[in-house]
Amino acid sequence: MQKIVQCVPNFSEGRDLEKIEKIVNPFRGKEGVKLLDYKRDEDHNRLVVTVIGEPEAVKNAVLESMGVAVEVIDMTKHEGQHPRMGAVDVVPFIPIKNVSMTEAVELAKELAKEASEKYNLPIFLYEKAATTPARENLAKIRKGEFEGMAEKIKQPEWKPDFGPNEIHPTAGVTAVGARMPLVAFNVNLDTNNLDIANKIARAVRHISGGLRYCKAIGIELEDRGIVQVSMNMTDYTKTPLYRVFELIKIEAKRYGVNVVGSEVIGLVPMEALIKTAEYYLGIEEFSMDQILEKRMME
Amino acid sequence: MQKIVQCVPNFSEGRDLEKIEKIVNPFRGKEGVKLLDYKRDEDHNRLVVTVIGEPEAVKNAVLESMGVAVEVIDMTKHEGQHPRMGAVDVVPFIPIKNVSMTEAVELAKELAKEASEKYNLPIFLYEKAATTPARENLAKIRKGEFEGMAEKIKQPEWKPDFGPNEIHPTAGVTAVGARMPLVAFNVNLDTNNLDIANKIARAVRHISGGLRYCKAIGIELEDRGIVQVSMNMTDYTKTPLYRVFELIKIEAKRYGVNVVGSEVIGLVPMEALIKTAEYYLGIEEFSMDQILEKRMME
Repeated sequence: MQKIVQCVPNFSEGRDLEKIEKIVNPFRGKEGVKLLDYKRDEDHNRLVVTVIGEPEAVKNAVLESMGVAVEVIDMTKHEGQHPRMGAVDVVPFIPIKNVSMTEAVELAKELAKEASEKYNLPIFLYEKAATTPARENLAKIRKGEFEGMAEKIKQPEWKPDFGPNEIHPTAGVTAVGARMPLVAFNVNLDTNNLDIANKIARAVRHISGGLRYCKAIGIELEDRGIVQVSMNMTDYTKTPLYRVFELIKIEAKRYGVNVVGSEVIGLVPMEALIKTAEYYLGIEEFSMDQILEKRMME
Repeated sequence: MQKIVQCVPNFSEGRDLEKIEKIVNPFRGKEGVKLLDYKRDEDHNRLVVTVIGEPEAVKNAVLESMGVAVEVIDMTKHEGQHPRMGAVDVVPFIPIKNVSMTEAVELAKELAKEASEKYNLPIFLYEKAATTPARENLAKIRKGEFEGMAEKIKQPEWKPDFGPNEIHPTAGVTAVGARMPLVAFNVNLDTNNLDIANKIARAVRHISGGLRYCKAIGIELEDRGIVQVSMNMTDYTKTPLYRVFELIKIEAKRYGVNVVGSEVIGLVPMEALIKTAEYYLGIEEFSMDQILEKRMME
């Protein structure tokens, strides 16, 4: 059985195309590694790479790419809108096929160990790979950003999981972890009242009493004159898309507002949408093994 | 770009396990050929094989398997509930990936030519491969079954497309064709009144005024005390599942009946369910290229 993991490393370079190509190159032409996408953002000054493949092959390609990034990115000169703490800011592994979360965590730990030794880089483990609950949330690890990290990691509770107890002078600090696939799912409302989108977001998201695997905020779509509940679904196997969609319709009703559409941004595992079809059609005893393409990939 | 076709040959042997294994064997251990499933039915005395792979490799495996079936099956001794006219009763090719319907038709014609020459077998082309509209419908070709075929193919309008103008003495006649993937989709109603299921079936199916790519009949689920609209969706890209499902709900309403669930039988292409999720969530500007597994298979 072929094992497949996904990895979505984020690098702190979104402007210099030559450097970006150098960082992306280790993902090209390698047995067992498939570069699905890479997107740079000039305002964020950040590069997001999406790669899938065999666990060991993906890990080795990421290790190589991290080496390039450590070499070509100088964080002392980095500016951008997105919070960041290192040249290789964050490296999440995502189990896709015949890989358990435990195996993805192991892979993250192996990469963290090898990269810390090879590049003299302090590394935190985060999310499912975290060694303490305080390190599960990436935002908490990254708080203070590159500029504050030299001081922060001197504190005993912020000693890195791997590597030296001081920042890399030009590459800063990296977080490596494991998580479920994210689904970026947005639901549009027929109002321009941002307050209503925010109220609905608070009603459906986990942190304020909503669904366990949903993060949500309200945002304005200015060009269309409407607002949106913008979400990250952090585990679609446990909080399926249809559930949050129906809940948003119910919450919208109290404001006399209607749902007028939705968006799925970027890549989505087929199961997230197939489970949604299964719900709406009320399909009895359906198995993912009935999906032709799943059988083709076995 | 890898090309993938599916083939679902039907053989007139559902009882003798030794013969069945001989017929299935050519689909095993071959480069570019994947045996997904084979199901025999004793009452029908019939074997249905589902295989996918590279067009040429699949065609050659089917050709080999046809040879075995012609050798081991004697139609003069065959009895079973399912209508049949030959040892290899029907061979449909189905385009799955990077294959056009035109290419699937070409493949059907190549197979028909080679098999007719090699096994001295009369062959009709049917559905999308048909050479006249009268031959599109398999049931019309098969009418008269094995027992009537010797006479039937003497008629000028039933001269086979390939092979001799007389039946194979023990293997009869074969139909080879190309079609879209079928989705077997059944919708359950909360009544035991078969008449209502039949009325709804007539309302939604193509032949009596319903949806273009829907075949439907009413059937009883005796053990559950309910009835079902049992359907073959013959082109889910043009008549999507959600459309017939919603239409059945609307038709059921006039009889005071509710839809209580549905069934998808056997294999289904992921797109059939993803398009259904897209409809119910009202996803704007969704592309199948956003499906992670589709990208993995490229």
